[in-house]
Order: sequence, then C-alpha cells, then structure tokens
Amino acid sequence: MSAQSSQSSNSLRIGICGLGTVGAGTLVLLQDNSAEIALRLGQAIEVVHAATRTLDKERRALLESCGVQQSGTDPFAVVNDPQVQIVVETMGGFDPAFEVVKQALSNGKHVVTANKALLAERGNELFPIAEANNVILAFESSVAGGIPIIKALREGLAANQIDWLAGIINGTANFIMTEMAAKQRDFADVLKQAQELGYAEADPTFDVEGIDAAHKLTIMGSIAFGIPLSFDKTYTEGISNITPEDISYASDLGYCIKHLGIARKTAKGVEMRVHPTLLSKSRLLANVNGVGNAILVHGNAVGATLYSGPGAGAAATASAVVADLIDIGRQLASGSDTPVYPALGYRTLRDDLPILSVEDIESEYYLRIPAVDKIGVMAKITRILQEHDISIEAVIQKEAISEFVPIIILTHQAAEKQLNHAISALEALDVVVGSINRIRVEPFHDEMD
Amino acid sequence: MSAQSSQSSNSLRIGICGLGTVGAGTLVLLQDNSAEIALRLGQAIEVVHAATRTLDKERRALLESCGVQQSGTDPFAVVNDPQVQIVVETMGGFDPAFEVVKQALSNGKHVVTANKALLAERGNELFPIAEANNVILAFESSVAGGIPIIKALREGLAANQIDWLAGIINGTANFIMTEMAAKQRDFADVLKQAQELGYAEADPTFDVEGIDAAHKLTIMGSIAFGIPLSFDKTYTEGISNITPEDISYASDLGYCIKHLGIARKTAKGVEMRVHPTLLSKSRLLANVNGVGNAILVHGNAVGATLYSGPGAGAAATASAVVADLIDIGRQLASGSDTPVYPALGYRTLRDDLPILSVEDIESEYYLRIPAVDKIGVMAKITRILQEHDISIEAVIQKEAISEFVPIIILTHQAAEKQLNHAISALEALDVVVGSINRIRVEPFHDEMD
Repeated sequence: MSAQSSQSSNSLRIGICGLGTVGAGTLVLLQDNSAEIALRLGQAIEVVHAATRTLDKERRALLESCGVQQSGTDPFAVVNDPQVQIVVETMGGFDPAFEVVKQALSNGKHVVTANKALLAERGNELFPIAEANNVILAFESSVAGGIPIIKALREGLAANQIDWLAGIINGTANFIMTEMAAKQRDFADVLKQAQELGYAEADPTFDVEGIDAAHKLTIMGSIAFGIPLSFDKTYTEGISNITPEDISYASDLGYCIKHLGIARKTAKGVEMRVHPTLLSKSRLLANVNGVGNAILVHGNAVGATLYSGPGAGAAATASAVVADLIDIGRQLASGSDTPVYPALGYRTLRDDLPILSVEDIESEYYLRIPAVDKIGVMAKITRILQEHDISIEAVIQKEAISEFVPIIILTHQAAEKQLNHAISALEALDVVVGSINRIRVEPFHDEMD
Repeated sequence: MSAQSSQSSNSLRIGICGLGTVGAGTLVLLQDNSAEIALRLGQAIEVVHAATRTLDKERRALLESCGVQQSGTDPFAVVNDPQVQIVVETMGGFDPAFEVVKQALSNGKHVVTANKALLAERGNELFPIAEANNVILAFESSVAGGIPIIKALREGLAANQIDWLAGIINGTANFIMTEMAAKQRDFADVLKQAQELGYAEADPTFDVEGIDAAHKLTIMGSIAFGIPLSFDKTYTEGISNITPEDISYASDLGYCIKHLGIARKTAKGVEMRVHPTLLSKSRLLANVNGVGNAILVHGNAVGATLYSGPGAGAAATASAVVADLIDIGRQLASGSDTPVYPALGYRTLRDDLPILSVEDIESEYYLRIPAVDKIGVMAKITRILQEHDISIEAVIQKEAISEFVPIIILTHQAAEKQLNHAISALEALDVVVGSINRIRVEPFHDEMD
C-alpha cells in the first residue's frame, strides 16, 4: 500500500492521538500483551509518538513506562511524523478529530479510530479519502467495544444477504433498563446511580436518548446493506419515557423491555431505528443484562447469529483497537498493494436502498392507555383500533391507579402511520385521561436462538 | 500468492469436491446470493469444476441449474484442473480427502474445507504444506457451522491472551440434552427421536461420545493458544451416562447440564476437554438450546465474549464456506504476496505449553452417590471426602429410590486425581451401593455475561 508502510522495519510503528480511557488503555494493552502480539503478528508494535491534550504527570509516567519516546500536545505532529505508519485516533468528538484523521489519511497513513460519532456523521467524507490514498481506515472499536462485530458483518457473514440486525449497543442504557426491571426503580433514580458508578456521563443525553446507539447502528447498517452512512435518517428514541409500570406490565405478558438498535431491509427500503423494544423473555438477547452489549444478526443463509460481550471499558475497547492494528500489520506484511477489505464491506455502495421514515415502518405495538374505570371503555377503545385496521393480540386491564385504570394492549403488525392516527383518535376519547405510551414489539420471526 | 491465483480473470474460479449436504449447499448459496457476493467481492465466484462420488440425476440437475460446466466423479480431476484457483473440499472423512487437499495445496491452489476431523487429526501435516506452497488453507466452516468463530479467535480477539474458551459445539448432543431436560426423558429415548428427525446419524457415536466436539475443540484450542493441533491429547467424554435424575438434581441446585468443549491455559499447561458440565442456569451459555451452538471466549483484555448461532445445516455451513471463498478472493485482489493470516493465528506455533492429562486438571464436581438409607451414612461419606482434602459446597439427600437413596454433593475445586482416589474409597464403603456418577462443574469465574 502506501510508501510509508512499505519501509522495512522490525516493528510496526504507530502514533496515538488522545490518551483518554481508550487511548491509555491501548498503550497499556500493547505493553501487557506485547509477547502474545508479536507471536501472532510476527513483529512488535511500537508506539513511536503520542499526543494528548493535557500532558500531565500521570500521562508522562504512563508514556515513559510504555517506552514512548516522543510525545506532546499536538495531534498533527503525530500525523505528520514520517516515522508513524498507523495513527490511532482516540480523541473522540469532531474537532480536531476530523482534521486529524483526514490529514493522516492524506499523508498516506493508515488510521484506527474508536470514534463512532465521527464515522457515523462524517464517515461519508472520510472513507473516500482513505480509498483515494490507498490506506486503511479501521474502526472495529467504534461499535460494541470488544465484540468483533465489524469483522463478523463485513467478513464472517459476507456470503449472506443480511435481512436484519438488532442490538443492545449502549451499555449505559442497558444498565439502566436492567436495574429498573430488577428492582422496580424509576428511570431518574437509576440514572443517578449510574452516574455515581461512572456508567453514565454527567450529561447523559448521548446514552439515554439513543444518540450513541444511533451512531453505532448507522455504522452497522451501512456494512450490513452496503449503503452510505445515514445517521441523519436514523430514527432515534431514548429510554427516559419508560416507567417501572411498563416494565412490569410487559413482564406479565412474557416480555422484557430493551433499548435496541434495529436495521432491517424490507421491500420498500431500509429501516434504521433506535428505541425501547418489547422482546420475548425467552430470547437470548432478552437475557443480556447490565452494561453488556449484544448484536443479533439475521442472514439469509446462516440464519440468526448472536455476538455478545462487554461494549465499553478501557481494556475491552483497546482489545478492538489493537486487533485493528494487528490486522493492518498482517496486511502490510503480506505485501498487498491495496486494503484487503473494503471499509464498509462493499466494493461499491448501493444507492437503490432508501432509508424509510419511521412513519413508513411496520411493527407490533404495546400500548398503555390511561382510561377511566367505567363500563364500556374497552368497547370504545377496541372499536377505534378496529376502525384503523389494527388488530389486537392481547389486552389486559390492570388494577386502577387512583382515578384511572391502565389498559394494556398488544397489537398485531400495523403501519406506524396508521397507529399514529389511531392513537390520536384514542386520546380524543373522553374516557382516555392522558397520553398513551407506545412501545414497539419485536417478535424476530425466524430467529433461531 | 501462487501463479495460478494471479491469472487475471473476471471471476474467481473454484472447484468443489463432494456434493453432500455442505457441498450442494455451497453451490446453491453461490447461486442464490451471487449478486450480493459480487457487490462485496468486486467479482463473481464461478464454479468451474465439481466432483461427486455419485453423479446421479439429482446432482446433475443441480450442477446444470448452477451453470457448472465440468463435472465428474474424480476429485483429483478438480484438483489438477488448471482453471481452478480454489478447491472446496466438502467430501468429509480422511480418504481420499487428505490426498485431495494435499494435492490441491501442492498444486498451488487455495483450499477451503469444512472437514474438522481431517484438520484436527491431520492438520499438523496439512498446514505446513499450505505454508510451503504459499497458499491459504481456510476452514471457518469446520467449527460451529455458520458462526464465524475462527475469524473471531484468530483476528477479532488477536490482541488478547486467551485465558479459556468453552463451547456448545455439537448440535446433536445439545438437542438431546435440551430434550432430556425439558421433558425428563432418558438418553436412549431422545437419541431415537433425534435419529428420526435427522439430527443424529444412524451410528451416533461421533456426536454423542464427544468425538466431533473434540475435533472442533482441538481446532479452536490451537488458534486460541498457538499450539499444534492435539486431538489425541484431548480428553473426551460423551453424554450417554447422563440420566434425567442428574438433570433434575442439578436443576434443584440452580444448574443445567450442557455438553461442553473447554480449553483453558493454566500455569501448568493447557486443559483440553470435552464432557458434560454443570453450568449455572443464569449463564447465557446455559440458555442455548436445541441444535444451536455457542462459544464463550475469555481474553485477558476483552473479558468474556459469546458467539452463538446454528452449528450445522446446509445453508449455515455453506455461509462459512463461501465467507472463506470471499476472504481468499479479497486477498488475491489486494495483490498480497503471501496469505494475510497465519492459518492458526500465530506466525510460529508455541512448543512451551503441554496439554495436561485429565488427571491433572482441577475442577469443581457434582457427585451422585447411591447410598443405603441409614443413619450415619452422610458422616461416613463426608469424612472420606475430608480425608482426601475435598471440601463440600452443598449436599442434598434425595428421596429414596427403591432400596437406596441418592446423595448429591457439590465439591469445591479439587484435583481430578484426588477426586478419583476419593471416589474409589467411597465406592468401597459398605453403605455405597453402586458406582458414583461424577460430572464436572464450571463456575466460569470472571465471566461477564
């Protein structure tokens, strides 16, 4: 590939930009597992240059203990260092990460990044730059931490037409949902605890509103279907509206509620959506608890395969960063002229698969309808659903809570647009005394777990 | 790589030896997904030559519908066909598969094989031939069907020192254990049903006695630890001694029984063992039912990751065969001079990790002791265990079955050698009225699921 990478050297020479959790974890892992890595790769990986915004005492000590000879605060010094063959971008954010990655690629260096936001939102600009410069832009660590899901989708399942994938891809949200379910606690309460434990940020919006999950889903959806990265078209709904009552009612019906990212190819186009989802308790995916991640992928030949493990943490994420480094090293050692794998798994991305608006998806639904406790209420509600062509799979009427009684309905498959109309009509009924909570239900037909 | 592979051609030209379930499935998959495969690979995959032992009407029709121009009954004609760049070996068995693969590699052709027995027992001869001829010998389909576990171990987790792995890697045995547990049926009864359903062979020895699982474990253990393939040193125990009572007693204690393949690196060496295992019901692995496969891998950086899906079946296995074809095609297209990945994941295999005898492993154990129903029995039994330094985690005494009463004991960690002595001493007691059933228990400390 690039001239720089064909320099002969005993070791693979990398530079690291950003020494936060993942960057520092990468340094430590390269040190701890250096013997094993050398046995696998056939050469050592040497960090020759590192940059960090704050070169404090602790980081100086880390750099020294890992034998990094050159360090500073300027990522562009790393990127422009002719010694560096591969740049690891673990700064996060867009600025200066975008320019750093762009410059590295333009300089003919391979890049390994853990930055899901950058790729999901600006990958459509960066991947062509990598291709034009004949270098690898690798990103296993950007989705589901240590789980090698990018490799599975792009390589392991390459013989399949991917029908759909569904994942628990944000550990913070899954921790909160797990705690809410296990202890009947409410969202705000568990969020506070998650923040104290360091599982959630001071500003938790990215995690609890589904933005982080949407970034990851965007990347997986692109590889699954060979479409451009489409973050802005991904429907995103968080978990802050889920109540302990919803979890309990769902449980009565045999379901748990998980925050899922779902990508599905249909005859009309691609669904890309992140939202709370009812899932039969018997599914493996329903049993992934705490900060764990798991992705279920359905291919037309293989059927359903599941990938599960830690989705975050310094060492787990560094495991994926270093796997990418080893992969690039192996490709360079093989003397290949071009990257072996197209970054997103397809030689040419498709332009014939539009992303559907959420209004155009079809789903089964859970509805929690706060109604007055009067004879004839159920008849009124079911009639409106019938008028909107929505058929009912199950109804339960719960015990009255103060002056109203929650009616829980599971519907069969219906178009979201249709359901929205039905909900408006239901909320206009005099017997309905508040807004209706709607949660999508995923039966995962054809799943094999 | 080889001269043959660098011929320029619009399509990747393959030959198939063996049109049984997997070979025919591969033909069908290449046909069904040809458009998707071409988008991913950037070229078509063309089957130019096929050989099958019995070229009957059905197979002729299949070959014709898939546009295979040359076919016959001689696999060596495929292997010696200069048109063929990659040979798919889906004949199974050793003879003539070994010579076919060897000849193909010697002819400078890449080989994709689903033959776990061949690799586990004779891979130590074949992999060096592949290396000497600078060609790829790929085998994703040989372990766990459609689950890309070889890629995960060799590439996705390459940054880790693998501590251990444990897998449900034989669908037949897992189906039998699942049915026994769900319906309190005995082994022979369920085996008969499995044979009727086509899940078990007429001669079920390979599956139920653990030989097939041991083949797969041998391959995974080699990649996990970088050691030569060691099938003959893998401890292998089947499921035919498990009774519905064992399953029920284990369940009372919070465990299920699964037939697992376990490979673990310890300070003394490597444990390689296939046997029934008690597993806490709360583990994801415990919830893998029916013909499904799942492998849990623990790396020192990533922690535990789980890979689950269909472990057999024509389309699922073909998914892995074709993934290997695409992988080889991508490497050839990149212009690499040598294979990108060492076949077993290490540039040089290690010779410093001996395989331990089962006598030298340590485990926790479940013991079912048939005893007479008399006062003082428990004291005698616990005293003997104490004398052998085996400490007890739990004891339950079940209701008497005719003249004897089963005593169930869970031990803490003990050396197998020590336990064998204790069992001999226990069986010599006059109050013990038959042989003691021993099943190993895996707590999977540090597991993160």
